[in-house]
Amino acid sequence: MTRPYRIDCLQYANWSEKVFRQMREGAVDAVHVTIAYHENFRETVLNIEAWNRHFERHPDLILHARTGDDIRRARETGRTAIIFGFQNPSPIEDDIGLVEIVHTLGARFMQLTYNNQSLLATGCYEDEDPGVTRMGRAVIAEMNRVGLVIDMSHSAERSTLEAMEISTRPIAITHANPHTWHPALRNKSDTVLKALAESGGMLGFSLYPHHLKGGTACTLEDFCTTIARTADLMGPERIGIGSDLCQDQPDSIVEWMRTGRWTKAVDYGEGSADAPGFPPMPDWFADNRDFGTIEDGLRATGLSETEVAGIMGENWLRFYDDGFGPKAE
Amino acid sequence: MTRPYRIDCLQYANWSEKVFRQMREGAVDAVHVTIAYHENFRETVLNIEAWNRHFERHPDLILHARTGDDIRRARETGRTAIIFGFQNPSPIEDDIGLVEIVHTLGARFMQLTYNNQSLLATGCYEDEDPGVTRMGRAVIAEMNRVGLVIDMSHSAERSTLEAMEISTRPIAITHANPHTWHPALRNKSDTVLKALAESGGMLGFSLYPHHLKGGTACTLEDFCTTIARTADLMGPERIGIGSDLCQDQPDSIVEWMRTGRWTKAVDYGEGSADAPGFPPMPDWFADNRDFGTIEDGLRATGLSETEVAGIMGENWLRFYDDGFGPKAE
Repeated sequence: MTRPYRIDCLQYANWSEKVFRQMREGAVDAVHVTIAYHENFRETVLNIEAWNRHFERHPDLILHARTGDDIRRARETGRTAIIFGFQNPSPIEDDIGLVEIVHTLGARFMQLTYNNQSLLATGCYEDEDPGVTRMGRAVIAEMNRVGLVIDMSHSAERSTLEAMEISTRPIAITHANPHTWHPALRNKSDTVLKALAESGGMLGFSLYPHHLKGGTACTLEDFCTTIARTADLMGPERIGIGSDLCQDQPDSIVEWMRTGRWTKAVDYGEGSADAPGFPPMPDWFADNRDFGTIEDGLRATGLSETEVAGIMGENWLRFYDDGFGPKAE
Repeated sequence: MTRPYRIDCLQYANWSEKVFRQMREGAVDAVHVTIAYHENFRETVLNIEAWNRHFERHPDLILHARTGDDIRRARETGRTAIIFGFQNPSPIEDDIGLVEIVHTLGARFMQLTYNNQSLLATGCYEDEDPGVTRMGRAVIAEMNRVGLVIDMSHSAERSTLEAMEISTRPIAITHANPHTWHPALRNKSDTVLKALAESGGMLGFSLYPHHLKGGTACTLEDFCTTIARTADLMGPERIGIGSDLCQDQPDSIVEWMRTGRWTKAVDYGEGSADAPGFPPMPDWFADNRDFGTIEDGLRATGLSETEVAGIMGENWLRFYDDGFGPKAE
């Protein structure tokens, strides 16, 4: 039997040859990497330039993926496919023409909001969620046209439900967990999860400790059982992994994620004054070498081999085939 | 017999449905269009956004070409392939990483200079030409790597000869004529033309009146005889058309071409205080519908059908196959 595809639909590591080698050790076929949190267009292009240098220096370890077939090619040639995405629409600034430009440059996921109100929709940390804006509707249509997937991981509930309704193509929540399991602001209600599944969307399970019941102490068993229970709610083909792994990052990076340039004050986000930095990862998931542990943990819940293979990567691969690029005629 | 390919390796029209329809009437298979004179990176991206709207609105008339095969596809589907190019390296600013970025966005030609000194080399209007700069050498290597063709149409002689020497791939002079025929500052010496041919490069014959002997009054016969004589000098496979057609442009555009933002004074370029605007085109070449006239004029000089087909487009097509994108292994 060939091993299942392994796809992680969100990481933001401090990228290095070490991390790329760990991806190979963990047999990770594809990773959706965040290339913008609060960056404007030009700053995002600088981040792509830095990735181009990674691709040039490590052609034996990684390649830039624009399609599902690029992931198949990565697997055939023993490399990890890298997919670009944004956690905020800041890279398109106020210019809808930049949607196609960033897609041409390789972007395949864009969150309509990070934690705050954006030009397009509302983030999950705002008190009020007035839903998708006028520009938001226009940008959703343009994202649908070019095949840039809408990601609502950090968005508020009404905006998320409206985005699913407005979008003519399935959307993704690349990295979040069920709110019923752990009531973090970032985790999603059953209403959202059911609507996501019914519209053909995908949920990526996060391993970021603030999204886990018990945080760093969360057990592999509890994590995998929650996935299996969510498979009952959403269907096992609507679920994957989006680890939110932020490996080797200094705490200054989580400060940047939380406050960007939008405030001069401190914002602890999901942390607190006592624990302002990155929380330690669970001991069973430290880095890319630990995907086999999750795969085994899923098997132990009684999920079938087909279901495990879907959750570990094949569901994302199918979603990418349909979602990346203009809709097939 | 199928008609020869028709490729124009430089135009800067005031793009409109009218112009695109004239391209189809003239059976023009491909046009290299200038998308930047003095624009910085962000401004160039805005110009690409405007082209994306043209492609979206007129999919029956034009398509965006990145390879020679896209031109074959355009011909098979009755459309004109549009190739992006820059007349100045201003779109890459001072950032070598932008070479690959603009290539990804579709750029396939970049002049190392317009008329002035650039960060890379020297333009033909400077008093001194110290040759290719340090950044120029680095950028030539990067252009060679990604397959962005070096164009020296507006460059000074030493810089042009040095660029050919430094580049590991053939370069182009997309729009200029022999200096022996008409001694304009923009036309090229036999030394340059011979070195260009020997290094596998291409010359595109310009129809911009300031580059023609007799200007607007230049005859079709004289133009075509000069092409035939240059075929003797360079070889008939090293020559094509690069009309420099600036159709439907107001005179404010030629002012922008000449002065950009680099001076507050007036610069008449190849014009004069008496004739500051665009000169009228010769009556035998007003727009894209007149390529058949040139084709007939070339036949009348005694050039063979194969030679005429090469000059009208097949030489450029072969050059694009070799020059666009990373070098084949």
